[in-house]
Amino acid sequence: MKDYIKEKHRKSPENYCWGRNSVLFLLSRNSSRCLKIFISKTMKGFWVGKITKLCSDAGIPFTFVGHDAMFAMTGGENHQGIAAAVSPADVLDFGEALETVPPPPEPAMAVIMDHLEDPRNMGAIIRSAEAAGAIFAAFPSRRGALPTGTVAKTSAGASLRLPLASLGNVAGAIREAQKTGFWTIGLDEEAPRTIYDSPLPERCLFVVGGEGSGMSRTASANCDELLRVPMEGEGGSLNASVAVSVCMFEWARINRISRVRSEEKR
Amino acid sequence: MKDYIKEKHRKSPENYCWGRNSVLFLLSRNSSRCLKIFISKTMKGFWVGKITKLCSDAGIPFTFVGHDAMFAMTGGENHQGIAAAVSPADVLDFGEALETVPPPPEPAMAVIMDHLEDPRNMGAIIRSAEAAGAIFAAFPSRRGALPTGTVAKTSAGASLRLPLASLGNVAGAIREAQKTGFWTIGLDEEAPRTIYDSPLPERCLFVVGGEGSGMSRTASANCDELLRVPMEGEGGSLNASVAVSVCMFEWARINRISRVRSEEKR
Repeated sequence: MKDYIKEKHRKSPENYCWGRNSVLFLLSRNSSRCLKIFISKTMKGFWVGKITKLCSDAGIPFTFVGHDAMFAMTGGENHQGIAAAVSPADVLDFGEALETVPPPPEPAMAVIMDHLEDPRNMGAIIRSAEAAGAIFAAFPSRRGALPTGTVAKTSAGASLRLPLASLGNVAGAIREAQKTGFWTIGLDEEAPRTIYDSPLPERCLFVVGGEGSGMSRTASANCDELLRVPMEGEGGSLNASVAVSVCMFEWARINRISRVRSEEKR
Repeated sequence: MKDYIKEKHRKSPENYCWGRNSVLFLLSRNSSRCLKIFISKTMKGFWVGKITKLCSDAGIPFTFVGHDAMFAMTGGENHQGIAAAVSPADVLDFGEALETVPPPPEPAMAVIMDHLEDPRNMGAIIRSAEAAGAIFAAFPSRRGALPTGTVAKTSAGASLRLPLASLGNVAGAIREAQKTGFWTIGLDEEAPRTIYDSPLPERCLFVVGGEGSGMSRTASANCDELLRVPMEGEGGSLNASVAVSVCMFEWARINRISRVRSEEKR
């Protein structure tokens, strides 16, 4: 965890704000930009109680970190025991994001990034998602890459334009999306069927797992279908961001591009 | 150029060999692994003549570099004024690579990477090319990323399995491929037609340009066709490696996967 914070800090110190007043203001007035709260292990009980209550009310994860990690995040500034990871753009709840989806028969596609580790992969997926016409991209609020400034940069700004949604639990979010008519597809290299075996439906939610471990088991079990991108070559493999990009563009080819063309013909 | 060398050196010193004897041996016996020769500006005329003659005979580019750059490459070791960038796998001539292409009606696809700058992009493209079923991936031997150890790593080993070819001139290579029946397609964001406007032909050579500048003008002028991946969203864009991956898998969908299926039905 320490290394993760340091790594993010080195690359983009602008992703953090710190100090009691500024973080309390952020939590109470602009919590949709607040990705995560870091509380020093040496902070006094009164403040810990106040801050964790605000976090719980706003649904924002918090964690306790050591002195060194706090200093690394704040570049040696006096942090008063509290810092916040801040998103450069507003982040929706998953439920709010589903409400922005246009009603059928309008085609709709979205993506859940299930505990990615590398912010560059997250940036690459968000960039491709925007270009393929996704409605939103969602990520778990705990344990995984968060859409900070590094992601804004590696997505070539797409993370500042495409609506982003945070979610508490991937399996729960999949079930919620199913209720609103999404066909949920988990990407799995070992799946028997490929994305070309039948046309991808009009309303698709793709779920792509972390770089090493793939999708979590409960997420996988809750998907309507597991599909893979067919590959040639012994030992061949695809980067997670490329695999999901190929899927999203295959969806766009079937559901958007052919649709635009048939409308033009009328 | 100095920064480029240092950058590569920092990440993978195993990409270089140095010293007169070892480089002369490499040039005379195993030149297909030799990507580029670096000669110290202080080297004596006799050796310069001998080495540049060997380079010219084997078609390997050479360049003169300062003392500091040589030391950075060799990690401070005594280099005797000469170093070589070494590929972890054999590299073919472009003509040799064309000879490995199966004859029609077998479908065939390959990719030319026209002066990429970032070895990570090269690695990503080679990885996707292998997975999509490319016959080979080619790169210009001068001015651009070379398939060194960094590329082997970022391609997840694909650069050690997929045949790689070096070429002197992109426009010339495009014309050579056309003579063997390849339809050559340049990727260009500004192209009026998209990759979905008509089915991609059975024998396709994709040409993808550098990250900032895109394809060179002469390369672009020599392609049979310029196509783009259609995109949604204002300001939306695709990473070069994702764009060419989407193209290669669209080719595979049309020419390999449907073909396998129609053969299975017989």
